Amino acid sequence: MKKLAAEFLGTFWLTFGGCGSAVLAAAYPELGIGFVGVSLAFGLTVLTGAYAFGPVSGGHFNPAVSVGLAVAGRFRVAELPGYVVAQVLGAIAAAGVLFLIASGKPGFEVGGFASNGYGSFSPGKYSMQAALICEIVLTAIFLLVILGASAKRAAVGFSGLTIGLCLTLIHLVSIPVTNTSVNPARSTGPALFAAAPEAMSQLWLFWVAPIVGAVIGALIHRALLGELDD
Amino acid sequence: MKKLAAEFLGTFWLTFGGCGSAVLAAAYPELGIGFVGVSLAFGLTVLTGAYAFGPVSGGHFNPAVSVGLAVAGRFRVAELPGYVVAQVLGAIAAAGVLFLIASGKPGFEVGGFASNGYGSFSPGKYSMQAALICEIVLTAIFLLVILGASAKRAAVGFSGLTIGLCLTLIHLVSIPVTNTSVNPARSTGPALFAAAPEAMSQLWLFWVAPIVGAVIGALIHRALLGELDD
Amino acid sequence: MKKLAAEFLGTFWLTFGGCGSAVLAAAYPELGIGFVGVSLAFGLTVLTGAYAFGPVSGGHFNPAVSVGLAVAGRFRVAELPGYVVAQVLGAIAAAGVLFLIASGKPGFEVGGFASNGYGSFSPGKYSMQAALICEIVLTAIFLLVILGASAKRAAVGFSGLTIGLCLTLIHLVSIPVTNTSVNPARSTGPALFAAAPEAMSQLWLFWVAPIVGAVIGALIHRALLGELDD
Amino acid sequence: MKKLAAEFLGTFWLTFGGCGSAVLAAAYPELGIGFVGVSLAFGLTVLTGAYAFGPVSGGHFNPAVSVGLAVAGRFRVAELPGYVVAQVLGAIAAAGVLFLIASGKPGFEVGGFASNGYGSFSPGKYSMQAALICEIVLTAIFLLVILGASAKRAAVGFSGLTIGLCLTLIHLVSIPVTNTSVNPARSTGPALFAAAPEAMSQLWLFWVAPIVGAVIGALIHRALLGELDD
Repeated sequence: MKKLAAEFLGTFWLTFGGCGSAVLAAAYPELGIGFVGVSLAFGLTVLTGAYAFGPVSGGHFNPAVSVGLAVAGRFRVAELPGYVVAQVLGAIAAAGVLFLIASGKPGFEVGGFASNGYGSFSPGKYSMQAALICEIVLTAIFLLVILGASAKRAAVGFSGLTIGLCLTLIHLVSIPVTNTSVNPARSTGPALFAAAPEAMSQLWLFWVAPIVGAVIGALIHRALLGELDD
Repeated sequence: MKKLAAEFLGTFWLTFGGCGSAVLAAAYPELGIGFVGVSLAFGLTVLTGAYAFGPVSGGHFNPAVSVGLAVAGRFRVAELPGYVVAQVLGAIAAAGVLFLIASGKPGFEVGGFASNGYGSFSPGKYSMQAALICEIVLTAIFLLVILGASAKRAAVGFSGLTIGLCLTLIHLVSIPVTNTSVNPARSTGPALFAAAPEAMSQLWLFWVAPIVGAVIGALIHRALLGELDD
Repeated sequence: MKKLAAEFLGTFWLTFGGCGSAVLAAAYPELGIGFVGVSLAFGLTVLTGAYAFGPVSGGHFNPAVSVGLAVAGRFRVAELPGYVVAQVLGAIAAAGVLFLIASGKPGFEVGGFASNGYGSFSPGKYSMQAALICEIVLTAIFLLVILGASAKRAAVGFSGLTIGLCLTLIHLVSIPVTNTSVNPARSTGPALFAAAPEAMSQLWLFWVAPIVGAVIGALIHRALLGELDD
Repeated sequence: MKKLAAEFLGTFWLTFGGCGSAVLAAAYPELGIGFVGVSLAFGLTVLTGAYAFGPVSGGHFNPAVSVGLAVAGRFRVAELPGYVVAQVLGAIAAAGVLFLIASGKPGFEVGGFASNGYGSFSPGKYSMQAALICEIVLTAIFLLVILGASAKRAAVGFSGLTIGLCLTLIHLVSIPVTNTSVNPARSTGPALFAAAPEAMSQLWLFWVAPIVGAVIGALIHRALLGELDD
């Protein structure tokens, strides 16, 4: 239960902090934080969550990460369903609280609400194929970084910093393509509140692509970099 | 006395650096630092203050943090009044020095002077209810991160980095809502110098909400994550 | 072979993350990440790659770095050819995947594709002489920082952070001059896909200058700072 | 001699990286790095220099820091003249190389060349009094952070990170006021190349104020925070 609470809190923080920065602050006139600020925000949710809650649950905050760690032999498959449910519930709760705050602004329109998308619902109108490749490649590298930075031979203490800043980097690259997911829970929370119908109809891709990418990353790690774990 | 001096200096730095970046540099034409720069500045005041003064006083620099640590059993209640007074005095001194510098610019108008506010005094005109929820939720998570990152089981040495960058993240999300407080001392200093009457008349919220949030965060930590302290 | 796989993956990540942020996100209307975001992205590829793959291969991800480390006596010359081939292949693969994603945007024009250049192909139209000096000086300092931060007397664990953020700093200075190389592999990948003929015809400079700079940095380190290695 | 070489190189890097980012990249159309990027650049020169060269010389790179450390009893007064000369020469060399590169852009006008100034030569036209207060207060706090973060009781390994990011924070606050010095060497290098006569005629303030501030910071540390050194 303690582990599930930590995953709930961490994924709440990831979704509230990351999507909150996008919804509330990204496009503020003149002084807004833009995609650089949103990228920093997402990364810092994981950095802070990893150092604060990581010692309890491992600090996944992301169903694709949990799947990838299971494939890599670092996480028990029996714990996977509980983790994923806790993560998704945390993301939904975060989107709900964010909706409460955001709707306190006069004239607020919910719009995409930081949902992920492709085609006409992609920020830069990237095709579904581009979105698939982008999410798969970035989640695969994310897992390679997670598995490497938290391996036995890695520098002690630096994994939270590395993994958080890796998520910042992933956002710096891919917000224009898909609004950046690499995390099915983060995609699910806002989609439930968004006014745009694509948010739900395109959600499948942001479960499939991150999980496929995570499995690929975990398999590459096992094949090529497994010595890091010895 | 050494502890109170450290809290005075640290809260001076938090208020001078954070509010100073907002007043002096945020809206500079073309090259200004915007909300991203202000968010970085606030976080880095805590990061630097924590590594520099933290070993003396614990590095609270924030009455809500002191209250939350007391509720969590990490700080003696008897020390609370002294800490809060030192923090508020540090913030007032910082606002005074900042006023001296800012008024050295021809045509300077004091305006809101980086005060916090809601409703018509919120940067994005967010309602009082939205401001309350936002400050409570963010301070609660701030305390969860502080308590987790400085727990016995946390990675050694990384708490200052984590807590500072958490304050950056909090600002990335919420400057448009309340100008971001999560710290009653930081709110009090500028309010005393601001020209806008709302700065003082709305100050109550930035004492109530951060302290309520901090207590909630501390209670959640005790209930769910207390094992981190063993 | 494990080392070469790590260098391939790390240089793939450096080129995909760094050039990807430039091609996909730098100039996005209103919210784009600009040169600050691209600088952060390049640095974070090295920071994350160093902590994730560094324990396997040393984390060079850059032919000039491999040459400099060899000159400094930190890397066996016999391993140099394999490393350089793996790095260049990684960068080419990254540019290819990036091309696939970028061309998924309606109306995409490949243009310079984040290639490096000088004269009329420099972002700010800097002369070939300025480009040469800039790349040589920055790569020399890059090697001084790499050799110093990873020396025996350096702080344990911080070399990945230092070297990654050094690459961020190098980009903050020099994107307007050459689009910043200091890395012949990173220059080669995008040049093969760029539509502009200068990308290939000017590529020689981004092999010569970084390698000359790296040798100079390594020699200065040996002459003046060699005690760090004792 | 090794120490002086390290101070020369470190101050070269501080001035070349920091002022270089300002001259070459700050105001690039649309994509320029602005004051946020310049602030990051200055801080990262110190962060990287501290980890790379700090174990040799202590990593001052700044005459005011050397003076403050001497006042605090952390640095031998007999070494002060050599350090200051090496620092100033490093800054002059950096400004010279930067001039070579910057003048390679067609239509380049040297202008202020990142010099420091007040009154009509301040970026935001701040008065001499405001500039004095700002530089004194910020250098005093800089020394408090340096002395605290490198004290015996401080977290091991984090001083370079803390001190570098403190310089970033100082710039986030004060570029509009004085273009930010807190470092007489950094002020002297560009002033010798600037076209504006104020660069030299106002240089005195950027020797006096940082040194006065550093002495104040060192004395406050000794009076209030000396226990950190036990």
